[in-house]
Amino acid sequence: MNRVWHVGKLVKGKIAISPFDRGLTLGDGIFETIAVKDNVALWRYEHVERMRAAASALGIPFPEDEIGSAIDAITHRAKGAHVLRLTLTRGEGARTLVGDTTKSNFLATLQPFDEALRFQPVKLAVVGTHRNTNSMSSRVTSLSYVDNILAAREANMLGAEDAVMLNTAGRVACTAIGNIFVETSDTLLTPSLSEGILPGILRLEVIKLAKLLGVKVKESKISLSQLRAADAIYTTNSLRFLRPVSRLDGKRYARGKMFTALSRGLLNAEIEQLMLE
Amino acid sequence: MNRVWHVGKLVKGKIAISPFDRGLTLGDGIFETIAVKDNVALWRYEHVERMRAAASALGIPFPEDEIGSAIDAITHRAKGAHVLRLTLTRGEGARTLVGDTTKSNFLATLQPFDEALRFQPVKLAVVGTHRNTNSMSSRVTSLSYVDNILAAREANMLGAEDAVMLNTAGRVACTAIGNIFVETSDTLLTPSLSEGILPGILRLEVIKLAKLLGVKVKESKISLSQLRAADAIYTTNSLRFLRPVSRLDGKRYARGKMFTALSRGLLNAEIEQLMLE
Repeated sequence: MNRVWHVGKLVKGKIAISPFDRGLTLGDGIFETIAVKDNVALWRYEHVERMRAAASALGIPFPEDEIGSAIDAITHRAKGAHVLRLTLTRGEGARTLVGDTTKSNFLATLQPFDEALRFQPVKLAVVGTHRNTNSMSSRVTSLSYVDNILAAREANMLGAEDAVMLNTAGRVACTAIGNIFVETSDTLLTPSLSEGILPGILRLEVIKLAKLLGVKVKESKISLSQLRAADAIYTTNSLRFLRPVSRLDGKRYARGKMFTALSRGLLNAEIEQLMLE
Repeated sequence: MNRVWHVGKLVKGKIAISPFDRGLTLGDGIFETIAVKDNVALWRYEHVERMRAAASALGIPFPEDEIGSAIDAITHRAKGAHVLRLTLTRGEGARTLVGDTTKSNFLATLQPFDEALRFQPVKLAVVGTHRNTNSMSSRVTSLSYVDNILAAREANMLGAEDAVMLNTAGRVACTAIGNIFVETSDTLLTPSLSEGILPGILRLEVIKLAKLLGVKVKESKISLSQLRAADAIYTTNSLRFLRPVSRLDGKRYARGKMFTALSRGLLNAEIEQLMLE
């Protein structure tokens, strides 16, 4: 079942937008991708707060009430697994690049999602498209996603399913669609927020879980050779949760010894949210 | 007069698009901004060819016939100065980042433009948002324009009208809306295409003009200190043509000695195109 919310209500088919909407013409806006189980938007509070911070960073007004109403309406009596996408643009503006900070245009969509894709192994390839660490955009889920698309296309051509993106300094940043974790003996490492990465919701969940499990977790700078030398590698994102990396370029990796405990922890966190509803 | 072309014809008001159009959701597409004088799209051939190359770089089909029809229809009997914007997105796609390479969605808009803005002095500020030289996106006019928007917003907050953006190596790349030229005694310098810049149509026109005028032109690497030490600085773009920089951060600059000849040359090139029509 697909559902679409635009300008205050659920709509069917196409949406009507201004041909001058800056989301469409300049990638000037932000988004969130949220896993939905039955009628529950998972980590809803965290996603909405991250979106609020991103809107503030770009100077786009945040229509909190409409976003709340949209999530309620679009997930109402939904059954099974879905992906909820929230999109907020700067709306229509004068023909200057700066844009104003008084308008916005909000859109939400709900589409079916195959839960079997969670926790599945993933093949990675290091690609030539880097994160732009020297821009605030590398730390915000903006609509200007072409670097990630180019990275994903490169990975695809290399026979991999996701891309390892380096930052401007040549260190490991993230994948095209998620964050990266490195398991080395009893330690879990992940690039720190200052490395030009998105502050992933599942990234933070895994960090918190690992601490609860007594695992040593460090947010740090990670070189490509450190990544390659890992005992195990994981990627996280809001839909796929935690994925063990089965291959990085030519090298195979076993599922790490922390995988089972972390996966169980994430599924427990999901169950808790379903029970609270 | 505003005119809008979408899906094969001139339309009024809003346009109907899929809520899953990747131009809107991921900045996955390209654009061209073209000056129109009366019914003539200036440097039309060059803009269309640049757009074709960009579409090819991103793997988006190029609807050449529709683009030709759209430019003809939208400029038909237009009077005075306008800005024509061509937007080509990857259209609606499956929910994977890679996207497919078989569909596209084309939009064109025409809006009035104040020609008095051409050749006007401009104040620049060096900003912290850099070009992402380690991505093909820095050399393509993609819809993912948020870095340029952030740069423009920074410049604005610094009391300037446009931003000097550096590349990943810390050298001068371009402004948020155009290319940069440096006049030093009898030489005109501009960052080479490998410096992470867009291949500006007016940039190429100025290079060709300067050669015709017997000026020594060099495409090269330009450091920030070289830029600051220039006799004069210019910016170029398709709408504003050539602008003398009046201030860069705290320092004032005089209009360079090449300004008059280059401006006349550009106006002559415009007249030639109007006469050919």
